[in-house]
Amino acid sequence: MSKPKTRLYIDGVLESGREMSLRKDHIHFLANVLRLKSGDVIALFNANDGEWSAILENFSKRQGIARIEKQRRGPDPEHGPWLVFAPVKKKRTDFIIEKATELGVEQLIPVITKFTATSHLNVERLRVIATEAAEQCGRLSTPEISEPCSLIELVGNWPKGRRLIVGDEKGGGVSLVQALSTADECSEHGFLVGPEGGFDDDELEFMEGHDFCQTVDLGPRILRAETAAVASLSVWNALTGR
Amino acid sequence: MSKPKTRLYIDGVLESGREMSLRKDHIHFLANVLRLKSGDVIALFNANDGEWSAILENFSKRQGIARIEKQRRGPDPEHGPWLVFAPVKKKRTDFIIEKATELGVEQLIPVITKFTATSHLNVERLRVIATEAAEQCGRLSTPEISEPCSLIELVGNWPKGRRLIVGDEKGGGVSLVQALSTADECSEHGFLVGPEGGFDDDELEFMEGHDFCQTVDLGPRILRAETAAVASLSVWNALTGR
Repeated sequence: MSKPKTRLYIDGVLESGREMSLRKDHIHFLANVLRLKSGDVIALFNANDGEWSAILENFSKRQGIARIEKQRRGPDPEHGPWLVFAPVKKKRTDFIIEKATELGVEQLIPVITKFTATSHLNVERLRVIATEAAEQCGRLSTPEISEPCSLIELVGNWPKGRRLIVGDEKGGGVSLVQALSTADECSEHGFLVGPEGGFDDDELEFMEGHDFCQTVDLGPRILRAETAAVASLSVWNALTGR
Repeated sequence: MSKPKTRLYIDGVLESGREMSLRKDHIHFLANVLRLKSGDVIALFNANDGEWSAILENFSKRQGIARIEKQRRGPDPEHGPWLVFAPVKKKRTDFIIEKATELGVEQLIPVITKFTATSHLNVERLRVIATEAAEQCGRLSTPEISEPCSLIELVGNWPKGRRLIVGDEKGGGVSLVQALSTADECSEHGFLVGPEGGFDDDELEFMEGHDFCQTVDLGPRILRAETAAVASLSVWNALTGR
């Protein structure tokens, strides 16, 4: 069987022989962007069922069915870190979502801090961006994206055994490499990147009052929020071998 | 003296007492975006002279002078890695330039490879993006950005003593951490990220024929070009302590 022309995330059961009606936006993408035809092979995937090859049948610009053939990869949950981010401007927030997905993040949590300039966040839109990034990068799952919460809610609900690494642009903290090599009861990680302007002193003090929070210094230059996010996740991937 | 309201990169000699006529675009930014007035303090910087505080005088929306006061930081050349990149779509290329500047890159080299989809590149525009990123992130210098070259020219002119680390999405290579911890005569680094679609087999073979080239595997997911660039530079910064 030929190599699939593209990958689509499908919210439904994938199993051999099943005929899936394709969604309108998928048909548009397959027919008008990729110019696929009946008989072409695509891949369908989701977190529960893994990735399957499927053949387009009765396929036109208006309708189409994908008949599922065989499994290409079994389910493989992501155990990447969590990313907590203060929403920034639209384009830069979109970028955080896309890159975090590519870099294997398991969960994305928007947090509203004192200096967060963006109050409205269309989480459904962000989920679409994450799905497209998962399709492109080869992931089987999409990261969970929760509704925005406050810093107090975040810290109050933070799970045991997961460290929260906080980028502090005032330079108060160890290096990221040091933070990730600290051995203690926290075997899992989350990263928190603040908004432009960073955190208020009271916010930093509040977080530092919790054992699972650790502030890190991300270097001599002031990184934009989205750069800090990508940098932290990249270093985590490199050091943990993911 | 109060904290400067912003930083501007100035292509000219900076020294105490000098009165600089401000460029039209700088006046627009200071007057209309930041709403500064005569008496406000800004910082001016460049690679040769470091960073200086300056006071706005006779300042309006049409004209203005900045009188240079005293030096805030001496010159401090960047010794970051080089980044060689195949131009991608406009927005994503802009992103590479901005992030590479934030992450301390010393030189940016566009390279045209077999699968490079973008042939035209406005290098002057990219220099403006790099300058704005330097102003924002606190750098004293802007990265050099050269005109595009071919892969053969790149490899032919590559300097002795600098390793060229090539991201290979086919997974042929050691990890980035391993590549950066290899001890040999190459004490400096450059990263090469290819276009969408990666490198041709002939291109990879050509590069692998040179001792200073080393292919690396950037992980299990397919990273977009700009993600691969930011990830490589972030890991370099983290491991070298920059």
